[in-house]
Amino acid sequence: MISLESDYITGAHPKVLQRLIETNEEVQTGYGLDAYCLSAAEKIKSACQCPEAQVYFLTGGTQANATVITSMLEEFQGVISATTGHIHAHEAGAVEFSGHKIIPMPHKQGKLNAEDIRRYMKTFYADEAIEHLVYPGMVYISHPTEYGSLYSLAELTALSQVCKEYGMSLFMDGARLAYGLMSRRTDVTLADIARLCDVFYIGGTKAGALCGEAVVFTHQNAPSHFMNRMKKRGALMAKGRLLGAQFEALFTDGLYFEIGRHAIDMAEKLEAIFAKKGYSFYMDSPTNQKFVILTKETLERLRKAVAVTVWEWLDADRVVVRLATTWSTKEADLELLEALL
Amino acid sequence: MISLESDYITGAHPKVLQRLIETNEEVQTGYGLDAYCLSAAEKIKSACQCPEAQVYFLTGGTQANATVITSMLEEFQGVISATTGHIHAHEAGAVEFSGHKIIPMPHKQGKLNAEDIRRYMKTFYADEAIEHLVYPGMVYISHPTEYGSLYSLAELTALSQVCKEYGMSLFMDGARLAYGLMSRRTDVTLADIARLCDVFYIGGTKAGALCGEAVVFTHQNAPSHFMNRMKKRGALMAKGRLLGAQFEALFTDGLYFEIGRHAIDMAEKLEAIFAKKGYSFYMDSPTNQKFVILTKETLERLRKAVAVTVWEWLDADRVVVRLATTWSTKEADLELLEALL
Amino acid sequence: MISLESDYITGAHPKVLQRLIETNEEVQTGYGLDAYCLSAAEKIKSACQCPEAQVYFLTGGTQANATVITSMLEEFQGVISATTGHIHAHEAGAVEFSGHKIIPMPHKQGKLNAEDIRRYMKTFYADEAIEHLVYPGMVYISHPTEYGSLYSLAELTALSQVCKEYGMSLFMDGARLAYGLMSRRTDVTLADIARLCDVFYIGGTKAGALCGEAVVFTHQNAPSHFMNRMKKRGALMAKGRLLGAQFEALFTDGLYFEIGRHAIDMAEKLEAIFAKKGYSFYMDSPTNQKFVILTKETLERLRKAVAVTVWEWLDADRVVVRLATTWSTKEADLELLEALL
Amino acid sequence: MISLESDYITGAHPKVLQRLIETNEEVQTGYGLDAYCLSAAEKIKSACQCPEAQVYFLTGGTQANATVITSMLEEFQGVISATTGHIHAHEAGAVEFSGHKIIPMPHKQGKLNAEDIRRYMKTFYADEAIEHLVYPGMVYISHPTEYGSLYSLAELTALSQVCKEYGMSLFMDGARLAYGLMSRRTDVTLADIARLCDVFYIGGTKAGALCGEAVVFTHQNAPSHFMNRMKKRGALMAKGRLLGAQFEALFTDGLYFEIGRHAIDMAEKLEAIFAKKGYSFYMDSPTNQKFVILTKETLERLRKAVAVTVWEWLDADRVVVRLATTWSTKEADLELLEALL
Repeated sequence: MISLESDYITGAHPKVLQRLIETNEEVQTGYGLDAYCLSAAEKIKSACQCPEAQVYFLTGGTQANATVITSMLEEFQGVISATTGHIHAHEAGAVEFSGHKIIPMPHKQGKLNAEDIRRYMKTFYADEAIEHLVYPGMVYISHPTEYGSLYSLAELTALSQVCKEYGMSLFMDGARLAYGLMSRRTDVTLADIARLCDVFYIGGTKAGALCGEAVVFTHQNAPSHFMNRMKKRGALMAKGRLLGAQFEALFTDGLYFEIGRHAIDMAEKLEAIFAKKGYSFYMDSPTNQKFVILTKETLERLRKAVAVTVWEWLDADRVVVRLATTWSTKEADLELLEALL
Repeated sequence: MISLESDYITGAHPKVLQRLIETNEEVQTGYGLDAYCLSAAEKIKSACQCPEAQVYFLTGGTQANATVITSMLEEFQGVISATTGHIHAHEAGAVEFSGHKIIPMPHKQGKLNAEDIRRYMKTFYADEAIEHLVYPGMVYISHPTEYGSLYSLAELTALSQVCKEYGMSLFMDGARLAYGLMSRRTDVTLADIARLCDVFYIGGTKAGALCGEAVVFTHQNAPSHFMNRMKKRGALMAKGRLLGAQFEALFTDGLYFEIGRHAIDMAEKLEAIFAKKGYSFYMDSPTNQKFVILTKETLERLRKAVAVTVWEWLDADRVVVRLATTWSTKEADLELLEALL
Repeated sequence: MISLESDYITGAHPKVLQRLIETNEEVQTGYGLDAYCLSAAEKIKSACQCPEAQVYFLTGGTQANATVITSMLEEFQGVISATTGHIHAHEAGAVEFSGHKIIPMPHKQGKLNAEDIRRYMKTFYADEAIEHLVYPGMVYISHPTEYGSLYSLAELTALSQVCKEYGMSLFMDGARLAYGLMSRRTDVTLADIARLCDVFYIGGTKAGALCGEAVVFTHQNAPSHFMNRMKKRGALMAKGRLLGAQFEALFTDGLYFEIGRHAIDMAEKLEAIFAKKGYSFYMDSPTNQKFVILTKETLERLRKAVAVTVWEWLDADRVVVRLATTWSTKEADLELLEALL
Repeated sequence: MISLESDYITGAHPKVLQRLIETNEEVQTGYGLDAYCLSAAEKIKSACQCPEAQVYFLTGGTQANATVITSMLEEFQGVISATTGHIHAHEAGAVEFSGHKIIPMPHKQGKLNAEDIRRYMKTFYADEAIEHLVYPGMVYISHPTEYGSLYSLAELTALSQVCKEYGMSLFMDGARLAYGLMSRRTDVTLADIARLCDVFYIGGTKAGALCGEAVVFTHQNAPSHFMNRMKKRGALMAKGRLLGAQFEALFTDGLYFEIGRHAIDMAEKLEAIFAKKGYSFYMDSPTNQKFVILTKETLERLRKAVAVTVWEWLDADRVVVRLATTWSTKEADLELLEALL
């Protein structure tokens, strides 16, 4: 039995685990002030070419999203998201639970469009009843998106531009950022992201860590007393070293990028296997998630040996299945998959 | 340089780490539904002699406290806590941040008294303006308390009784439960706790885990859709296996109790060293935290070689210092300390 | 200068004001427990043919909506609303501010469709990641809607049915209920509403009161300690008599219906005037709000003598204007309007 | 049967009611932007000798308190209050419901002491674990207090000073301000309050209005988009004229002060009656509330003809009773009371 169910099916990349083992018995102070958090933050700032960045380590994606969004927004503001955005669709209402509205907008393959936002903002500021509305204070994007698609540098620049025009923060959910950065079809670098976004996070959980997301505020714009805000949301880890040591490993010798590249390589092979066998894809995805259309019969047969995620039923017989690769995906897994098709 | 600063200064107990290493490359499903979470839950239920218990794994103490309290309370209810209770004093207002009042009550050495609560409740229900008040819906206690003290079985039984009388849940914060259970001066067992409390948690972070607290609802009283409630609080870990595997190790072959016992042994030796040298203690603590009174001069000298926590200044020259032992405290550390005194 | 800007441009209907004057110097107890609140509640229960109803008086529409929704929903639940629903579009995010997601759904002329909801719920309960979603726990409708349209008895019955199927409450925002009940094109009575909805409110502010909305829970389903919940939301008026006396007047000798009928009569005349002059309507509305399409030039000319609300610009030259009638609209106002067209 | 139960037992002062009657049929715009709100705000600014003030009208005391406190505080801040403070003791946890902790402090006759606060702040800022605490961001006082006592100008100046030292806002709950200003034993004027507080409110509900509290931000320090923040708390009245017209009346020809003076006169007579008959007082109160100690037997006898509030039982036989005067208290009421004693 193999699994292509998600990119968090196995533990930590061996080099990440190794760092935890090596540092385990050292005495370190708590709450993110240990030597590894500090060192990891420096390495991340360097990788982002963003010396003025502020870096905080949180445990998981929903926690990172809700903490960043609800601590950056003013009380009278909400956050714009694609209707497919993870915060809108799959986080159990965590943002609203902390008091802020998500303003849903239409998407194209999971992406927001700067021009749509500009149009929305123009109408918004022309509304005579504006104080009865929720002020948009942030734009949330995921990169890669929930569909595995990527913003181009031009698209990201345009989003950054419209946010600046209307005084909104641009926040990138980078839960799968490793796969976005290492896609063969991207022109966006980590330095571009740090330059164009006000805040983003570098996902660890889905890219080789046991847990952990590194939140990067790019221009000294972290909300004041951010540590206190984390604490009050239950998001401040006592042994912060667990997060620090992992990110220290991920940003040493390019490991984070190596993990991304391996998964991309595996995903491309996987895609080629399906294509060769004549399957069609629900959409084109340049990252580590592939969305294949199967018949019900094929799904049932496949599931006996391969764990996959059912994305959506197109009709009674055809289903979109998501397959994801990760640091632990092996060529042998794909060969086995090929044999089954 | 040695550290007696807290019980979370080092990583995981070697056996806990070993379990993470062994299981690292296995494929496991996410969100607390993996084999290790399931197995750890069974072992905990068995250790508690509470087959009907429901067990959930959260990341840290503040998160566990806020999630349990605010998901169990009705909207019109608050939680009674000692003024020294961690939720009242040291969690950055996390409970209030989620909408509930903490009703502070006086303490004796960190402990609440059942009779005080009964008196409060009688007055409460006699108030003609009751709908303008906050209904007490839960009693929060920590065991050991923030001062290292312990409830006796009689005290705990009395608290359980008054809670039943007034329809309140009894919630025990067991961040340091290992040290309470293994104190030589306790008559309270894990089974007693499971029998007398409605909900409690078994602390991992401060007892040999990298992170993790096991929340135990003792009589099928977990709030409905608790997983959804965790998710919406950013408290649902994607690779839940990290928590499951650690607790699986802690509750195999009595490791959790062994860790507690070691720290208690070290704490008793530490106490004997100070006593022998003629120091006095701020209070009597039967667990792994000792509160010693030092002069300013001694503190300064000590801190050159030993990390400790300043608890409270009694006057300009005398200071209460907290020293805590843990799984990694060594006899050699104590010998070095003795040499310095 | 006349005003057709909204239905809350003048004070109270003379008979409502008279009741305030008559009762002003009487001693009455506070917080909604006075004789007038009790009597008004009885009269409302009788008008609803719903003896088991529980009636509470709140100050305004947003307060009523947010209080009802967020106190009835479980923490893991959200509320379904049309994208045009007042709570989604024009209440500054009040529902989300208290922690709950609004699940927006497409509308037809401001109305939700039972079949759309059923389809949504089927997909919802089939989702393998259901605990990552927000459970729909309530359906919010407004009647009349924000566009002045009305549910037919068949439509309302179908909505009630789908709510029952999926364990959701049906909540009707009746800010303008007077105009819905007295429309010449409705087959829905107050008794039907009490029978089919779990909770609704009878709007006073927009129907002849100075302020006040009467929330009706139809089957002893008010959240426990509702008065406490109101208090904690700042929604419990000390001199509740202000609300009680007004509703007591509104539900004596059919005043509420008389007020509704007068506004409907005026609205029909207004509609006839525009129709006769050849103007077109943005949509057909059977209640007290009419949506007329004007040219920019006509709008400018009209606004010199008539206050109206700009609803939406169709293009650079054509604008939808809303005109609303109320208890104080006079035939003379309409004659003046006609002269201006 | 007469009532001395509270100061909100009757409707509006005749002159307030008269203004509502006179203005009832005028067309006015909604949401606090009507001519009366604007005029009332000007009159209040003038009475406060504070031309740069911003004035907003809310419906009741709990709503005013919670709205001001939770919209002015940063997320990481809480509010200091006497343990007897209305927000801590009698508002059903409204402040915590909106996410902020109340930091309770000891009181003397309901009053906070500047030196106590200074000591608390010194310890607070010396705490090594400060990010785990709640930052005090505001000091809440009531004037008159819940016990009817008053701050002297020196005490108020000292509170203002300590707030400035530590960057906290000083907020005065003036639910009964009329009685504080008109006490014969005060040296504090409305202008002093406007000069020394950052924000306060002038209570209408308990001083002759049907409802309404005028919140005054004294130095252009209203939170941005305050109207939006009111709306999202359900605290923005559609027919804001109801509040505006009443405050316009209260601040015309000194009516607010006249109302206060009348109640003070009646309270002094009431006090003299009890004193003459040999009753003792629980505490000395210079305003419109008097706290008399009665035997159980006297209470029972009295309650047959006079409504009073039971404040607290001292023992099985002795009870503290609160008697309050208001605009509608008559000399005849007091004569009747005297006859009963």
